[in-house]
Amino acid sequence: MDEFQLIKSLTGRLPTPHQDVQVGVGDDAAVVRATSPLVMTTDTMVEGVHFLPTTITDYNLGYKSLAVSVSDIAAMGGKPRFALVSLAIPPGWDENRLGQLYDGFREITERFGCDVIGGDVVSTSGPFVVTTTVIGEAERPILRSGAQPGDVLFVTGMLGGSSAGLEVLQGITSVSHIGQALLAQRHQHPEPRVAVGHLCAEIGVHALNDISDGLASELNEISAASHVRCVVHAEQIPVMPEVKELARSKRVNPLGYALYGGEDYELLGAAPPRVFARLLTAASMINVPIRQIGRCEAGDGVVMRDETGRLAVIEAKGYNHFKRDTDVDTDRL
Amino acid sequence: MDEFQLIKSLTGRLPTPHQDVQVGVGDDAAVVRATSPLVMTTDTMVEGVHFLPTTITDYNLGYKSLAVSVSDIAAMGGKPRFALVSLAIPPGWDENRLGQLYDGFREITERFGCDVIGGDVVSTSGPFVVTTTVIGEAERPILRSGAQPGDVLFVTGMLGGSSAGLEVLQGITSVSHIGQALLAQRHQHPEPRVAVGHLCAEIGVHALNDISDGLASELNEISAASHVRCVVHAEQIPVMPEVKELARSKRVNPLGYALYGGEDYELLGAAPPRVFARLLTAASMINVPIRQIGRCEAGDGVVMRDETGRLAVIEAKGYNHFKRDTDVDTDRL
Repeated sequence: MDEFQLIKSLTGRLPTPHQDVQVGVGDDAAVVRATSPLVMTTDTMVEGVHFLPTTITDYNLGYKSLAVSVSDIAAMGGKPRFALVSLAIPPGWDENRLGQLYDGFREITERFGCDVIGGDVVSTSGPFVVTTTVIGEAERPILRSGAQPGDVLFVTGMLGGSSAGLEVLQGITSVSHIGQALLAQRHQHPEPRVAVGHLCAEIGVHALNDISDGLASELNEISAASHVRCVVHAEQIPVMPEVKELARSKRVNPLGYALYGGEDYELLGAAPPRVFARLLTAASMINVPIRQIGRCEAGDGVVMRDETGRLAVIEAKGYNHFKRDTDVDTDRL
Repeated sequence: MDEFQLIKSLTGRLPTPHQDVQVGVGDDAAVVRATSPLVMTTDTMVEGVHFLPTTITDYNLGYKSLAVSVSDIAAMGGKPRFALVSLAIPPGWDENRLGQLYDGFREITERFGCDVIGGDVVSTSGPFVVTTTVIGEAERPILRSGAQPGDVLFVTGMLGGSSAGLEVLQGITSVSHIGQALLAQRHQHPEPRVAVGHLCAEIGVHALNDISDGLASELNEISAASHVRCVVHAEQIPVMPEVKELARSKRVNPLGYALYGGEDYELLGAAPPRVFARLLTAASMINVPIRQIGRCEAGDGVVMRDETGRLAVIEAKGYNHFKRDTDVDTDRL
């Protein structure tokens, strides 16, 4: 099977594109209609750096590789519309494995109404590399630079599960069977917060980031871009119960997973108190838990107050792909 | 230097984005304004498959990796507007080499008025991988499916230079010094035909492809997509004189380089005779040579007529990255 036949067979597994896709896969470029402002992002995942066959199935790799880009669009308050996917494939990947990968693409694109309109498939002698580009529409894009003193800092969902799940998948640590499954799911199959991101844009949230590099890193990004001081309260940070269980067994601080673990793909935002109150109500109608974790103040930097009232500076020493070893690193805390 | 500092340092080498880029590199996603229809394409180049350090400089790799995507936009009759660039970087690439690569990005984006609005930079234990995504505007996109019986088949520029240049760069063969430089330039620094592609759209060309996989492959694509038979004349195919010189010294048919060499990034089009006549005039004003190479007829397939009048079927056995060995292949003909 040559490149053209392979692409045809694989794209045949994807849903029929929406009407705004005038030309999808198969010409020199795709042709689409979309409404400005447009939001665009790209992400690359490399085997041995971002995943291993032992830590993710081919299906979930397909799902997750696009989910991380969809999450970036969610963090702008946008709606994902179009995706392009490039693969560098090592020897040993057969059509069956690629089919699984594309079935994962299918799930994420179907769920978020986003069409795969193009891509590239090439061979490599090195590790598997997948690069995803997602283009979305965002009527009112939310930047990370809009936070103001007095804003409430909030997060969606529960944190720490993805990095704890990676440890479980590597067999390094153990929690209950149900806990293992939940944590592994958080690592392999993250849920981009598109609906609540869109709500944030409609309601007027000031600043928004998705938590790809750990809460500490994202807080520092908002602080630096918005020129505000972020003050968070340790006991308000929502950590998954299974992460706490795992942390207890390892005698480490569970907050480490939330602050420095990364890849949770929840949203971190800043909003005036009245806007935050409206968001809480609206988000509860779509069953997305939202929790205040602190406040923005005049100043700079990020500090965390613990239960005793002590303040500690939180550095942006989050999950940084570029500084890491080429092996999946389990020692991120 | 961590990922964030590195990206900042590298993107600092790029030109200031145009006004339609509301947010460039630095947030979860870029924010831009553009007019539909939009055209979008992505390409991946892998060290050892598509290039070697001995066949291309880091500067030209930056230039060429974006040029191949810009060429796809040209082949739609579009204007490139925005680019996203992802790199998987092996150990040993320092900031200096990456700076050279970005200087190459700078040249191609400046020349075509296209802004780098985002990207990703990750590490890899394997070969260097660069993935480029280019988004353009195309008021009247030209598909490969629009050719009709009676249309003139034409190409821009001269063919065969890129694959011959690769042989020169690998030291496999020799031509005159000036010839070597010209052929190497064709391989390392292709010229996307954006202006003439745009002219084709304005004037009403029926079908257009860029010649990335060799003329034989592109003819077969137009034939299959448009349901026409393509009849080309061997003596009308414009082959670079330096390619002919090289072919003579190797005692091979120079047409092989044009038909199966690939990576020339010239345009192949089909247009009614009156449209073709107008295109000839318009293209000569911007100094782009255009040459008729044959005609479309009712039927299917691609045939070539040689000087004696004999017809030979031309198969689409062009340059196919997926079927090739992982080493750069010199034996493509």
